[in-house]
Amino acid sequence: MNRQQLYNLIKSKKSFLCVGLDPDMDKIPDSLKKLENPIWAFNKAIIDATKPYCVAYKPNFAFYEAYGKMGYEALENTIQYIGKEHFIIADAKRGDIGNTSRMYAKAAFELLGADAITVAPYMGRDSILPFLDFNGKWIIVLGLTSNKGSEDFQKIQSEDFKPLYQSVIEKVASWTSPDNTMFVIGATHPNSFLEIRKIIPEHFLLVPGVGEQGGDLEAVIKNGMNTQIGLLINASRNIIYASNGDDFDVRAAQQAQKIQKIMSNYIN
Amino acid sequence: MNRQQLYNLIKSKKSFLCVGLDPDMDKIPDSLKKLENPIWAFNKAIIDATKPYCVAYKPNFAFYEAYGKMGYEALENTIQYIGKEHFIIADAKRGDIGNTSRMYAKAAFELLGADAITVAPYMGRDSILPFLDFNGKWIIVLGLTSNKGSEDFQKIQSEDFKPLYQSVIEKVASWTSPDNTMFVIGATHPNSFLEIRKIIPEHFLLVPGVGEQGGDLEAVIKNGMNTQIGLLINASRNIIYASNGDDFDVRAAQQAQKIQKIMSNYIN
Repeated sequence: MNRQQLYNLIKSKKSFLCVGLDPDMDKIPDSLKKLENPIWAFNKAIIDATKPYCVAYKPNFAFYEAYGKMGYEALENTIQYIGKEHFIIADAKRGDIGNTSRMYAKAAFELLGADAITVAPYMGRDSILPFLDFNGKWIIVLGLTSNKGSEDFQKIQSEDFKPLYQSVIEKVASWTSPDNTMFVIGATHPNSFLEIRKIIPEHFLLVPGVGEQGGDLEAVIKNGMNTQIGLLINASRNIIYASNGDDFDVRAAQQAQKIQKIMSNYIN
Repeated sequence: MNRQQLYNLIKSKKSFLCVGLDPDMDKIPDSLKKLENPIWAFNKAIIDATKPYCVAYKPNFAFYEAYGKMGYEALENTIQYIGKEHFIIADAKRGDIGNTSRMYAKAAFELLGADAITVAPYMGRDSILPFLDFNGKWIIVLGLTSNKGSEDFQKIQSEDFKPLYQSVIEKVASWTSPDNTMFVIGATHPNSFLEIRKIIPEHFLLVPGVGEQGGDLEAVIKNGMNTQIGLLINASRNIIYASNGDDFDVRAAQQAQKIQKIMSNYIN
């Protein structure tokens, strides 16, 4: 899915919601646990319930890897089931020397069929660019993350007295294009969006941290939106675990719809 | 395997070699390709051939993920086959918000049985420490990596005019212990080892970049060794792909032995 197609999808659905798929055996309803692959059953129900309200899904790879073969099968089924009508983000935070990044890209894009992968920037240019050798695919590079630990290194004063995350965004943006690159900017830093939009006015931003992590949805929209919306706002736990009873899918749909309604106010 | 056990192993084998297991279908001998799981067959032969000469193995997770279920099965078999006589490093470069890092740790330590996992530091303290909730397990945090891209961010001048990688090493070392934490320092920066040893005299360092990437083995040993050796020097491609014919295992053993002999000169 290219940038124009993503923007068209946002306009037609009046949503820029991304639903994070972090299936956790300790949190899914008991009634699913006796099934052959509870994680896949859970995801299928969540996708069926939320698909009218979102434009993207973001399976968090850790939550599949932690369940071995069952997890891998659930991940394959999930991505295939989501299909072509939603943007699919492999949330894997990968990054390594060139020949290794290429193998991670192959796994996410060719084997599994994701549209985009989240990438950790620490190892620099030759760890990031190999992911873009795959035609039509996207990287989503960590900029300023939503967690408390974002203070530890990302905000270190670096060149020209800029925080490190700004150097990362500037350099990565200079190597790539808004047509193949997004950045992760946590909703827990709503005021930083104004600064970031001066550096990268055109890029899409993937914004985690709304909901469970305390980010303010409307502040992010006001400070971060651009002429193509330019935001994919992710919610995981407050949608998929809105209930741990058998109404989990109905409650997930309600939560997703609630966020979508707020978003629709910002889309003409 | 704890630090004293690792040191004892190094002394008894007169080696601090780590063999990197990066199986690539394009590079393994043709005769293996007709087998049910060529990657596992390749690894088994490499392990059988090299195990007298090394103290650690480092499966690079990208090279298994790129082969889907077959890759996962090969990774499981490989770690199980290596067993308890070698230190096993899950080279996965993971790191994410706390609940997600915990899932990655579960995958590497509980499901697969690795002793250590490589961790990317960009997301800070709460992305790193959850890996240490697993008793007896190690993290190996990226410090100064072997690739050209290490110049892009790791060498940015940060606080007190130190390069970022030094801030990373100092902070991570202050949160953790030499009994559960190592750092990745690329062999392509042999002179940096002197500076790094002033910050962390006691820690083990995992050193990639000898061989294919051009690092100088003896310079690294001279500048990086401490009283417990304190180095695990990794070689991947120049051992496992020493030949692409049916003598690949014999040639791998020869290459590993050659490095081990050099190392033995530094161990009394």
